[in-house]
Formats: sequence, structure tokens, C-alpha cells
Amino acid sequence: MNLAETTKILLVMEYDGSCYHGFQWQDGLPSIQGEVEKALTKLTGERRRVMSASRTDAGVHAKGQVVSFRTGSALSTDNFVGGLNYYLPNDIAVRAAYRMNDDFNVRREAISREYSYYILNRPTRSPIREGFSYLVAGKLDIEAMNQACLELVGEHDFASFAGRNGATVKSTVRHVFRAVVEREGDLVIFNISASSFLLHQVRNTIGALIRVGLGKMTLDEFNSILEAREPALAGPTAPACGLCLNRVNYPGPLENFDEDL
Amino acid sequence: MNLAETTKILLVMEYDGSCYHGFQWQDGLPSIQGEVEKALTKLTGERRRVMSASRTDAGVHAKGQVVSFRTGSALSTDNFVGGLNYYLPNDIAVRAAYRMNDDFNVRREAISREYSYYILNRPTRSPIREGFSYLVAGKLDIEAMNQACLELVGEHDFASFAGRNGATVKSTVRHVFRAVVEREGDLVIFNISASSFLLHQVRNTIGALIRVGLGKMTLDEFNSILEAREPALAGPTAPACGLCLNRVNYPGPLENFDEDL
Repeated sequence: MNLAETTKILLVMEYDGSCYHGFQWQDGLPSIQGEVEKALTKLTGERRRVMSASRTDAGVHAKGQVVSFRTGSALSTDNFVGGLNYYLPNDIAVRAAYRMNDDFNVRREAISREYSYYILNRPTRSPIREGFSYLVAGKLDIEAMNQACLELVGEHDFASFAGRNGATVKSTVRHVFRAVVEREGDLVIFNISASSFLLHQVRNTIGALIRVGLGKMTLDEFNSILEAREPALAGPTAPACGLCLNRVNYPGPLENFDEDL
Repeated sequence: MNLAETTKILLVMEYDGSCYHGFQWQDGLPSIQGEVEKALTKLTGERRRVMSASRTDAGVHAKGQVVSFRTGSALSTDNFVGGLNYYLPNDIAVRAAYRMNDDFNVRREAISREYSYYILNRPTRSPIREGFSYLVAGKLDIEAMNQACLELVGEHDFASFAGRNGATVKSTVRHVFRAVVEREGDLVIFNISASSFLLHQVRNTIGALIRVGLGKMTLDEFNSILEAREPALAGPTAPACGLCLNRVNYPGPLENFDEDL
């Protein structure tokens, strides 16, 4: 098939990442990418590579991951939604599909990624929240956590918040647009939006913020960690199950789905 | 053991009902009651019957079920919470325990039960909400549903909202204190509080309310169903997975847990 005859499809996707070794394809291991590519082949007969706007780690969930692929298929976007949801396993779903110019790059053109980390802040475990939150029994000081959050906002070198492997990138400078902790009953939700994130950055950040919230780390200590720019200094890395990629933003309107889940 | 030496323990419980054939013990089938009684025996060595404030059906969840049992054990309430949570399966948990007078009746002394029914109101399925909501693709008219809700409030004969077997009770009159439908993004939540409920009453009520919300039933038709007092006239019975027993209220303060889950 001639490349000129293909177009690009963008999908907004939701998944329960519990059973997958992350978004990215890995030989012999279940991955979100692998499942989407299998479903695409079943639907269109084509074998295509799927690219994501944000690579989620093993066990991390998504309500608004954005992925793209080339296709020669003339299926309508509605039929891509319905057809892929038919072939995908129950823990992965397509929420919306858009037909884009062939040169649209789902990763490079994204201007920000929004993640939430869910903490269940109560003494006892929750069968209903299990799998989508991390249980912290000690009462968290939300005000102290939000003071630390303010230090994160802006353009900083986040090397200390990257895992040991996460700092092996050209630059560890990232722009955090928003970082806020909110309490809703016994749920404590950390919302963070940034240009992009280093490997394990959100989970190391919330790991440090939880220490602040429990009074085990002062604001000064938190700042010293940020200023040290030393890989893996922050943490501990909070469990993947509490993390969810909520939304990826582009300069123009791409999707019109409500994101209040 | 002498009965005079026993006291009564009340537990506030949360469970994911997906894998159970309801609260009540059934021979050879997994039940919440069966699991709690097994865990109690492991913890105390005693074999005791457990009674619930509200019998939840197969597949129905709970965030605030209240159960009681007699015990000769001198374990502290904290140790009942910790010990039972150790022995219970992951999808059942104790949130709090209270030591009560031996004559306290967990069912008779409850003054109201609060249930929520969760509808995911969007075109595509949700891997994250799956198991705890019912997918309705057509846009629901919340205002129309709330007008119908108003008809439910007060003391009425709810025979039409009972299943065929649910109307074989002495009286089908119940007092509904509150019935409200709210939208939170693409989630539509029906909250209902009543003295007690007939078998399948909440699920038949939301089944009829969904028809109202989709414009398939007028307010007049909804009223005629209520007035007809004919078993199983309302419906269809909405799936169990969307239903959750949030809270059981007693004349005095029993528990101090936040119920915002």
C-alpha cells in the first residue's frame, strides 16, 4: 500500500493497567500497545505500529491516553471506536477516535500531560477502591503537601525525582504547570500537569509528598531534594496502582469527552 | 459458654459484591455472611451467626453495611477490625467495630438505609468503572428523572416496584426519605434513602427512572405504575453491579467514618 493513501487515526483510550506490563510492547509480556495492535489487525487486516502520547508504566491506569496509527482503511471514526471496543479485552477501551493529517505526531505535538495519584487515607483497606488507589493509614496534612507542591510549579531540573534510569535522558528539565493535592472524604488526590514527565517522576514526587504529609519530611528537606538534582534522591516510589493518566492536551481541541471520572 | 457472658459486636463493612451470591448464607455458594463467619471462627475460635442490617442481593456492593454477632471473646474492637481484615478475602473488609448492648438488634433498630446506583452515561464502556456501574449510552434527562423521584418521596405502597417475590411480605408500604439523581461528569448517581426496601426495589426504581431519563416513559406513566400497586410492574430490574449500600443509620451516632467514597 502506498504511504500517500494512508491517513492517521488518533484514539482517546481508557484502561485498567493492573494486568499489563505498561503501555509499551515487550516481547512475551502483555502490554496495552500489543493489545491495541492485535485488535487493529483483527478489525482492518493491517499490521500497524501504535504510538502513545505518554508511556505509562506497568500497572498504571489511563482515562485519557492518546494513541495514533497510520491506516489505509476507510472505516469511519465511529466504526473504529465500535470495532476496536469489540476486539479489545474488557480492561482496555476506546473512548473516541479522530482522523488527523498524516504528519500529526501524537507525542511531539502534545503540550501537556495530566496525571492523578489516588491515595486512600484511612486506617482500613477498601475492597471497592483496591487496584485504583494506594492505602496510607496515617492522617495526611494536605496543607503541608500543597506547600511542597508550590515548589514544583515552574521550570525546574527534576533529576532528583527521576528514577536511576529516568535520568539518562538529554535533559531532566521539565515544566510543571500545576500541582495540587485535594481531599475528598477519605480519598486524597494529587493532580499534576506538566510538559512531560521523567520516568517514575510522578510516583517519586507523591512518595516524597506523602512523607511531607505524614510529618516525616520538612518543607526545607523537600526543597533540598529538588535542588540537589541527584537521580533517585526523592521517593520512595509510590505503587503504580494509584496512578492514572487523565488527559493529554494539544494546542487545538481534539476531543470533547468529559473527563470527570 | 453462658449467654450472659457474651456481648454484641457491630461491624461497619465494605465489600465488592461481584463474586458473591449476596449477603445471605446459601449452601454451597459464596456469600458475604459465609466469609465473615469463617473469618470470625478463625479469629475467635467461636462459631457465631452474623446478621446484617440490609440484605444485599447477588453482585451488589457495600461501603457501609452494618452487621452484628454475639461473642464471648474479650478482643478489643480494634483487634476485631485488624484480625478480621487479616482473615477476610481482599474483596471484603471491616471499616470499624463497636461493642454494643447484647439486646441491640442491628436490623430492627436501623432507622434508614441509604443506597446509591451508579450509571455511566456515555457511549463507550469504561474499564475503570466496570463492575461498579451500569452503562447507559443514551443521554439521560436528569431533570425529568428528578421529577419522577419527587413522586417516590413519602410513605407509599411500593408493590409495583417489588419483584414478583418481593411482594410476598406482610406490607409493601415503605417510607422514602430522599430520592435524588445527580450528574458528575459522565457519571449519573441515584441516591435513595428509605426506612427499608422491598426485594429489588432500588433496581426496579432505577430501571423505571432510566426509561424516564431516556424519554421512553412519561411522568404520568411513572405515576400510574406507582399507583397500580401491582408486583413487578416497574422495571426493568437494573443490573446489580451498579448498586451499592452506602450507609445504615441508627437513632444515635454509631460510627464516625467518612462516607464520601
